[in-house]
Amino acid sequence: MPPRIELVATGSELLNGRSVNTHARRLAARLRPLGLALARETTVPDGVGAIAASIREALARASVVIVSGGLGPTTDDCTREAAASVLGCGLREDAGTLQRIAERCTRSGRPLTPSRRRQALVLDAAEALPNPVGAAAGQRLERGGAALFLLPGPPDEFEAVLDGSVAPWLAARYGARPGVERVLMTAGLGESDVAERIEALGPPPESLAVAYTAEPGCVQVRVSGPPGADAEADAFVGAVAERLGPAVYAREPEDLAEAAVRRLAAGGRTLATAESCTGGRIGERITSVPGASAVYRGGVVVYADEAKTALLDVPPDLLAARGAVSAEGCAAMARGVRVRLGADLGLAVTGVAGPGGGTVAKPVGLVFAGVADADGTDVREFRFPFDRAGNRRAAAQHALDLLRRRLSGCPSRR
Amino acid sequence: MPPRIELVATGSELLNGRSVNTHARRLAARLRPLGLALARETTVPDGVGAIAASIREALARASVVIVSGGLGPTTDDCTREAAASVLGCGLREDAGTLQRIAERCTRSGRPLTPSRRRQALVLDAAEALPNPVGAAAGQRLERGGAALFLLPGPPDEFEAVLDGSVAPWLAARYGARPGVERVLMTAGLGESDVAERIEALGPPPESLAVAYTAEPGCVQVRVSGPPGADAEADAFVGAVAERLGPAVYAREPEDLAEAAVRRLAAGGRTLATAESCTGGRIGERITSVPGASAVYRGGVVVYADEAKTALLDVPPDLLAARGAVSAEGCAAMARGVRVRLGADLGLAVTGVAGPGGGTVAKPVGLVFAGVADADGTDVREFRFPFDRAGNRRAAAQHALDLLRRRLSGCPSRR
Repeated sequence: MPPRIELVATGSELLNGRSVNTHARRLAARLRPLGLALARETTVPDGVGAIAASIREALARASVVIVSGGLGPTTDDCTREAAASVLGCGLREDAGTLQRIAERCTRSGRPLTPSRRRQALVLDAAEALPNPVGAAAGQRLERGGAALFLLPGPPDEFEAVLDGSVAPWLAARYGARPGVERVLMTAGLGESDVAERIEALGPPPESLAVAYTAEPGCVQVRVSGPPGADAEADAFVGAVAERLGPAVYAREPEDLAEAAVRRLAAGGRTLATAESCTGGRIGERITSVPGASAVYRGGVVVYADEAKTALLDVPPDLLAARGAVSAEGCAAMARGVRVRLGADLGLAVTGVAGPGGGTVAKPVGLVFAGVADADGTDVREFRFPFDRAGNRRAAAQHALDLLRRRLSGCPSRR
Repeated sequence: MPPRIELVATGSELLNGRSVNTHARRLAARLRPLGLALARETTVPDGVGAIAASIREALARASVVIVSGGLGPTTDDCTREAAASVLGCGLREDAGTLQRIAERCTRSGRPLTPSRRRQALVLDAAEALPNPVGAAAGQRLERGGAALFLLPGPPDEFEAVLDGSVAPWLAARYGARPGVERVLMTAGLGESDVAERIEALGPPPESLAVAYTAEPGCVQVRVSGPPGADAEADAFVGAVAERLGPAVYAREPEDLAEAAVRRLAAGGRTLATAESCTGGRIGERITSVPGASAVYRGGVVVYADEAKTALLDVPPDLLAARGAVSAEGCAAMARGVRVRLGADLGLAVTGVAGPGGGTVAKPVGLVFAGVADADGTDVREFRFPFDRAGNRRAAAQHALDLLRRRLSGCPSRR
């Protein structure tokens, strides 16, 4: 019988409009491979009363209660006190956590103040869980057959303690065999296109479930089934991959930038980027991949037209005749940055992100992306229907997909 | 006495990792101008039992319960049935909603199937609320002094019914004047430093509450109070701002990049950026601000050392003698990009993001940020304790703060 697991997310910023709560999604991603599920999430403001009430109610229903937030150094941080009041225990200072906090302070040249020290307090009946990313200790307490976890709120700290302490504990305690899961990452097709092509194959085997997660420019297809359904899952996924063709860029969760860096490294090839409307987003995504330095020479953000000439040798008369937002302008940028930075491939993007700057001939959302290598230059035109941020995001994503397809020898059309 | 308002968000996709729930933020944005607040959000999966339990529990605590999701045409959509079971009432077909659904079907050339028709069902004691964006009717029911609202799940439909029916009802019923709110945006101080400096002022006036939201490199201080407390809030915030000094960069919610662009525009000055470890993140943040094109010339991402020479004229012997990650290297990059792109100011960042690349002399997390203008170049050294992504994020944030302080004539030290 799988345990009932609940999440209590604390923090007034989650209820007053300032922040969006992503903890449920992050927790669910860890539960799924263990064959476990989240039954409820309750979000409450900072405040001992509200937090204590929600912990008490959750413990009455669930075997595992995970609480996030409220473990920091300020006076709003009162999860420790709330949990202590529910369980009727006191607080103690954990030596290991205190030492880690002291070391962090030394490394960043800050004093170990009383408020920073508060983050070493744990319930006296709890085990402190190490937080490798931040200061506050996580905590685990067991009481009457239920387990209570207190985790730090900042997302990267929440995930670090989940991965380091909570997921291993759940795996050991509830030892569920994970079901079978297969993933296909696709780019260049919209969610309903992907879904329709898969549905055209006919219904999947009864034991398998198909789910889609769509982000701009990328659709993840997830096929899941019960333990032991590997052969069925592989056969079905094989058929889906064949149907989706070159839209598939990976068989496990992978960012398009990772996919591009992986292919560059495998071929021993280098890349340079020239960005206009995307402003540096592509460079940032490429360099976020560890190992990018082996393949990425660098890039330019040529926001003003003069910069396109100053940095990339794009001829001023081409800019005057065709404009920077043109297939020819894009091709010149891609070729220029390839030469200027001595790279095997140049990737360029130019477009009208909006809200201003559009015309009838070149409306907001018009974007050109191009890839130049020793064999020539390939430019594609896109028309995005989003707002400024959405157009920039889509432009970066589709440019990375154009690069990926070029590196894979795939057709750049769908 | 303001009403206790709760949100129940239904939908398995909100708990199994596929979607992130943004309803609380959208609802809070409508409540705040009415002087109202959200006390709790509960997220439950599709399923009559789970939804009914959470509605029942919320109605026992709150005067206003808003339920989102589960009003669609498929078999997962069971919010109507769950609410009916809690309130012991039946369902009726609302004529106005049915007509709207029929018209939508005609317009999109789709048949009026029984499942689409289900979206016209409302609890027999409820008033149907029009949904101008989608098919399913919203609903309002009052029972025993409490009000229950059922709203469609898709965000744009949720907001449309909120704006069209719920917010006007709340304004008329609870007619509250919004409380007073003041915000201070700070950069360059950690959350506990900010909190300690404010606490050193002594306790705030009893009517005011102080809250902190911290993101890497930026702490937002929010002071809130009841309607009419303007003078008290202004006096307290004035004292806080004086205590925090140059760390304060705005008196309303504002991103550091927006603050920098605003100051550049106000002074009629232009900027160019040279990034190494941040990979393009600074350029992306600057260009995400509408109006950046008036002040941002462009930038370079000089990931490889040769790119620093090729694009910025950083002398190779300086790189050989001092290394790229050095105060001198950073200053040369800042001066070089300023000249190369013809900008008034050059902002440069170079560092070791990790996980590899660190040495004893130049460990992971060591970052230099520098600003060059006609008067000279100012470089600051940082030591960040984060992982790769965290170090890159912190480097970009602190570089933007260095630029902001330079533009404001503030000291670059705290």
